[in-house]
Amino acid sequence: MDYQDFFRGAVDSLKAERRYRVFAELERRAGEFPHATWHSPEGPRDVVIWCSNDYLGMGQHPAVVAAMTETASRMGTGAGGTRNISGTNHPLVMLEAELADLHGKEAGLVFTSGYVSNQTGISTIAKLMPDCLILSDSLNHNSMIEGVKQAGCEKKVFRHNDMEHLEDLLKAAGKDRPKLIVFESVYSMDGDIGKIREICDLAEKYWAMTYIDEVHAVGMYGPRGAGIAERDGQMHRIDVVEGTLAKAFGCLGGYITSTAAVVDAVRSHAAGFIFTTALPPAICAAATASIRHLKASGAERQGQQAQAARTKAVLSAAGLPVMPTDTHIVPVMVRDAEKCKAATDMLLAEHGIYIQPINYPTVPVGTERLRITPSPFHHDGLVDELATALVAVWKKLGLPLNRQAIAAE
Amino acid sequence: MDYQDFFRGAVDSLKAERRYRVFAELERRAGEFPHATWHSPEGPRDVVIWCSNDYLGMGQHPAVVAAMTETASRMGTGAGGTRNISGTNHPLVMLEAELADLHGKEAGLVFTSGYVSNQTGISTIAKLMPDCLILSDSLNHNSMIEGVKQAGCEKKVFRHNDMEHLEDLLKAAGKDRPKLIVFESVYSMDGDIGKIREICDLAEKYWAMTYIDEVHAVGMYGPRGAGIAERDGQMHRIDVVEGTLAKAFGCLGGYITSTAAVVDAVRSHAAGFIFTTALPPAICAAATASIRHLKASGAERQGQQAQAARTKAVLSAAGLPVMPTDTHIVPVMVRDAEKCKAATDMLLAEHGIYIQPINYPTVPVGTERLRITPSPFHHDGLVDELATALVAVWKKLGLPLNRQAIAAE
Repeated sequence: MDYQDFFRGAVDSLKAERRYRVFAELERRAGEFPHATWHSPEGPRDVVIWCSNDYLGMGQHPAVVAAMTETASRMGTGAGGTRNISGTNHPLVMLEAELADLHGKEAGLVFTSGYVSNQTGISTIAKLMPDCLILSDSLNHNSMIEGVKQAGCEKKVFRHNDMEHLEDLLKAAGKDRPKLIVFESVYSMDGDIGKIREICDLAEKYWAMTYIDEVHAVGMYGPRGAGIAERDGQMHRIDVVEGTLAKAFGCLGGYITSTAAVVDAVRSHAAGFIFTTALPPAICAAATASIRHLKASGAERQGQQAQAARTKAVLSAAGLPVMPTDTHIVPVMVRDAEKCKAATDMLLAEHGIYIQPINYPTVPVGTERLRITPSPFHHDGLVDELATALVAVWKKLGLPLNRQAIAAE
Repeated sequence: MDYQDFFRGAVDSLKAERRYRVFAELERRAGEFPHATWHSPEGPRDVVIWCSNDYLGMGQHPAVVAAMTETASRMGTGAGGTRNISGTNHPLVMLEAELADLHGKEAGLVFTSGYVSNQTGISTIAKLMPDCLILSDSLNHNSMIEGVKQAGCEKKVFRHNDMEHLEDLLKAAGKDRPKLIVFESVYSMDGDIGKIREICDLAEKYWAMTYIDEVHAVGMYGPRGAGIAERDGQMHRIDVVEGTLAKAFGCLGGYITSTAAVVDAVRSHAAGFIFTTALPPAICAAATASIRHLKASGAERQGQQAQAARTKAVLSAAGLPVMPTDTHIVPVMVRDAEKCKAATDMLLAEHGIYIQPINYPTVPVGTERLRITPSPFHHDGLVDELATALVAVWKKLGLPLNRQAIAAE
């Protein structure tokens, strides 16, 4: 037995299934987003990033960068300990207050990542309720699935956004049993939206607790950027709002906001929160600056919506198979893993456009796609260049273009 | 049923057991460590931190701070995506190469925290080996226990550092079964050291894989600061070395280093790595600067060892119950949860000394303690002030002092 064989084998099988991932090594340039340097095997090259989750380009916002550099200069680079043992820093406490205010909740709690906030947040909340039943949307993110697993309690998965199915499950569980409904606001691969109002109605009718993941919505929706639930006037009806500081807010970390009782209980019982080093003060200060800016300014949100709409329109008019979405996410369907990878390789090598292929297991086999995320900084010229490049790649790979759309244009 | 009652109850029970934690809100001041501002309920106050895991004060090192601010100014605050989808940044790739070099391994892999690196590293490695048996030291950290749990395979816990017990378990499992031994180099609460050489001997004899957690040793032991295994000439015998960037290196994040095959397999299969945002370039650059500095400079390590030895000597001479340790960790035993909390409250309020009480479940009931971590910056005057303050508190609380030690002095 050679131990290394197990690991070589585990990688070889991914390669055989065309699922082996190669990471693109990027060097972002503050002030020039979405332009960046790609450290290609042949040396550095200029590229345009079209698949970033720094959705609003806040990672390069002068106020956000300044908060980070000023705080690092003043307080140093790390927190120096867990939250309990010397790691609770002043900017982190300020950030938690800011997040509670953003979502109109009593309290906020910051984790090292959105992944950890779901994993340890969901599992801890569910564990604190005797005989809890978790009701989980079938398209929930891996971090939520892990949280549900780690809760160790019974779970039922309801078909994505299927309210009849959810109601059946709630009814069967009975009013007296603690129930936790976990779902997302923006499902990031299809770009569709969870049925927040309907889920809240059912939760009230059957006395369930609600937990929403707004990671692909915070900063981008609602008058103060608190997310889809804020936009739709439902935020106050949701028990726990989870979000991230690493996407539209441009930094790092995740969080939950809820009642003081829920937050204090999670703070006190969640192993994944207790036994890990706190977020550095410089990161916290940057995140707070970003949240505050986006609370007051709608320009970034409007710019993103405008450029997302324009991207959808221009690509569709060029005959490309754009999946219609209600959000800023623009999936362009390839429906073949190898061609999806080939298309993105070609875009990068021949057109200086960086889009990562989205293949199984992130999406089901047969729905492989390019997932394009226009920001306010992807101006009209870049959108046109993207369309031209995609059409060239589509032709080279023999992928179908919608001739009707092209004719109509 | 009121859902909030579950959470209020979960907190009330901790309060009843005297296990409720109150976080001290700190504002560190770069260049003045271990001095910091404590945001007390009555307003800001100067304190000396004696329980930081920024063991060498590298979080305020000018080269480390400069790397962070320079990189943030140039590349922005966040990574902008997962490792696969636009988040792999140039400083992160450089950091992974630096870590591989530090531990003399083929490759390194960075996670958002040391907690996550253990949790997802151990579980993924074990899952990739059919019918793996995990052999886990009984004093392993919570993050390792979680990793073992999530692996879902069979596990046997061996009594802390008990080589006979470990050998019995290895023998019983047989040579042909994949076996993973997981253990630590420095156990952070008792400050004792894992039997690395003996474990490697047994691993070779019974054909097991080894995984060591060096989080409380990296930066601080060995000629280049790679940890206890380096110091003892055993590093090359260990299959996976796990470490942190958040303690002696003064930043944030965790990592594993190993063969290229292991790292590539974990990179490709670990959900907790794949589905989370990459570490920001500014954090990675700061960590790299810190590692490079400590590879070349032994002054911080010598300073820490000297001040740890002096602290042990001065406190012991004052009659305080210092638990002897082989490391930089100085436990002072209280053996009572309420008095432990009272002692630290008094130290903070009356002496401006911040030490967090260590109570159950972090340590067993009856072994409650102050865990003191002298750094190179805790100079002789501060050590003397600490001893005076501790003796005053000990007397006030009626805690036993060793009169013989005092007489001898």
